[in-house]
This record gives sequence, C-alpha cells and structure tokens, in this order.
Amino acid sequence: MLKMKKKISERTIERLSIYRRYLKEIQAQGKSRVYSHELAKVVSGTAAQVRRDLMEVGCNGCSSKGYEVESLIIEIGDLLDCSEVENVALVGVGNLGRAVLGFFSGKKENFDIVAAFDSNPDKCGRIICGRRCYHMDDLQEVFQKNRISTAILAVPVEEAEKVAKTLVEAGVRAILNFAPTHLTVNNDVFIHTLDMTMELEKTIFFSRQNLNLKEG
Amino acid sequence: MLKMKKKISERTIERLSIYRRYLKEIQAQGKSRVYSHELAKVVSGTAAQVRRDLMEVGCNGCSSKGYEVESLIIEIGDLLDCSEVENVALVGVGNLGRAVLGFFSGKKENFDIVAAFDSNPDKCGRIICGRRCYHMDDLQEVFQKNRISTAILAVPVEEAEKVAKTLVEAGVRAILNFAPTHLTVNNDVFIHTLDMTMELEKTIFFSRQNLNLKEG
Repeated sequence: MLKMKKKISERTIERLSIYRRYLKEIQAQGKSRVYSHELAKVVSGTAAQVRRDLMEVGCNGCSSKGYEVESLIIEIGDLLDCSEVENVALVGVGNLGRAVLGFFSGKKENFDIVAAFDSNPDKCGRIICGRRCYHMDDLQEVFQKNRISTAILAVPVEEAEKVAKTLVEAGVRAILNFAPTHLTVNNDVFIHTLDMTMELEKTIFFSRQNLNLKEG
Repeated sequence: MLKMKKKISERTIERLSIYRRYLKEIQAQGKSRVYSHELAKVVSGTAAQVRRDLMEVGCNGCSSKGYEVESLIIEIGDLLDCSEVENVALVGVGNLGRAVLGFFSGKKENFDIVAAFDSNPDKCGRIICGRRCYHMDDLQEVFQKNRISTAILAVPVEEAEKVAKTLVEAGVRAILNFAPTHLTVNNDVFIHTLDMTMELEKTIFFSRQNLNLKEG
C-alpha cells in the first residue's frame, strides 16, 4: 500500500535505496539480522545516520540484536515503491540509451521501461533491446496511453532542453537526465541530472587525494 | 599547479564540478558575472551553501556584483584538476562500457580513457570506440606503463568484487563502479558506486511525491 509520504530528502531516499540493495544481497547470503554500523559502511555514513533514516520508514532496531533484514526490506519498499509497477520511458536511443535499456533489461524491479523514443526514423517502429521505439511525434499519445510520468533523458546535450520541454508538456513529473547540462523547466517537475563527467571528476579527485595522503 | 588539498567532502566536490559545468555554459553565452543564488538553483541548494563552497577554492564574491565567471572556472579547476591529464582505464567492454567510452569520446577534459579491458578474447587486441582493448591478464602491465590509478568498472555484478580486487592489486587508488553492489576492498581505495537502479528509483519516488502533492 502507498504510504502517506511526508517531505523526505533526496539523500535519504538515495541511502534507503542503497540499504535495500545491500539488504537483499545479505539476505541472499542467508543473513537475517543487520546492525546499523554495517549499513553505515555501505553508504560511508554513521550508525546514527542509519538509525535516523530507518526511523523514517518506521523501523526501530534493537541495540543488541540489530534489525530484522526481511522487515527492513519490506518497510523500505513500502516507502519507495507503489503497489503498481511504474511505467517509464526512455528518450534518445543512442549508445547511452541502448546501454540503459540493456542495463535494466530482464531485471525485476518496481518499474518497467515500456517505451523508447527517438527522432531518427530508421530507429522508429523497431524493437530495440526489447522495447518498441516510437517517433518523438508520438510521445504525447504513447505517454497518455501508458500512463507514463517518469522519463529517462539520454539525448545529446544540444537537444536536452528542447526535449525536456516536450516531456513536461506531455505531463511527466520527473526526469532522470543523462545530458550534462542544467535543464530549466517547470519547477513542479523533479529533474535528477546524472552527470558522468562530474562522477568521474569526483573519482579522480579522490584518487589524487589518496596519492597526496600517501606521499604527504 | 596542484594545490595542497585539505579534507574536502564528496558533496562539495560534486557541487564544485556542477558549478564549473554551468559556469562554462553561461560563459559560452557571453555572461561574465554570476550570483550565488543563480548557482544555488543549479544544485538545488542555498546561496549560503554556494558561498561556503566557493570559499573552499578561495573565491569571495561581492554581494552587489557577484562572482567573476572566468576566475571561478580557473579557481575550481585549480582544485579539481591536476597539471597533467589523468589517465583512466575502463574495465568491462559490454553495452554499458561501450556507452561510457562513447560518452567521453572526443570530449576535451582533464582526464583521458587510455585503455579498455575485457576477459573476452574476441574483444582483445581490437580498437573499440577509439581505445585499444586489452585482456584482463595484461592489466597490471598496462596500468604501470600508463600510470593509471583510476578505473571505471563496468563488469557484470557477479564479477565486480573479483575484478575490483585485481584493480586494487594493480595499484588503483579510486574506482568509479557501475555494478550495483557494495564492493569490499582495501579502505585506502576510494570507491564511488553509481547505481542506476537507485538513481531511477529516486526519480520515480519524487515523480510520485509530485503526484501526491498535486492530488493531496
């Protein structure tokens, strides 16, 4: 059942999603209980932070026995997931778009990429990585028919702003944007930009910092 | 020149990298000055946070005229970049690996993906997306020859832990990991896991929250 969602921060949602991934991993290994300090390591955080996060989903652990893995997975799912599977669209079927389709292909999650879109007529009408590719002109119709309100944007940076506006007009409420640019659309739409250059720059920065610490 | 790096948080580095991307965008549009509240919008933060971040790189703005765009770009670069281009390796040339190579191909950055690795002999010895693909067995040698200390890990989740250990043995100091799993390697190595499932789950959560706010 969909819980009443209170205002909850992006970082908390990120951490809860990561806890769940880890909890499923250790559940598969046969573990039934977990301590907050174990979860803290997974997000490079503190045990106190973990306990605050888990209180958000209504879980209180026991300092001597920790948390029950199974009930944590259920409680986090109650917050993050909906009772229905969420239909998602991918826009832009280039290298990155195909990789995203391939990445999620066959995974059992609480969402489903039900359609892909591209402006290249050669790609339209085809099945690419298991999903039908439609022309951008059909976007509004397909979005309405499939009740799609979340889109993954994997178009070149020059087109991102224009396509994002089309998505907003089609009624999307959230966009996962892979184009490394700041999109200025309607404030009511949640934009999450995943900038791979930034992610790599950050990794390199800490690679160098490790070197400096060793040499320093 | 490489500045003496003090302990600086991951989030600050992320934001500085995003500020710089945005600053380059507005510089290309002819803007020479920027206010902290403009930068705050780009990271969904506050102007006070922006000013704190920019003090980290030694920039003080003026409340009436803001910051100079060009000097900000230089100062952020002095912190984030090194005087030499950083050599990076990609490990795992599947769909996602190819997309990563394609994404960075031709981009002028302060890093360069100089080699790719795969365990599939059919891929080895070939040029893929502009980079030579080597066999995993040659990893240590190629890393030493090219002074590679940062790796992008794009192998299947089942192999990630084993390959990460190989990378650590070859001397990497930081890994950008695309496999959705918690890697337990040497503490001195910086691991940044980019979990696309988590990123999409987060986007969907806020998509639904937007719906609830509208309907609530």
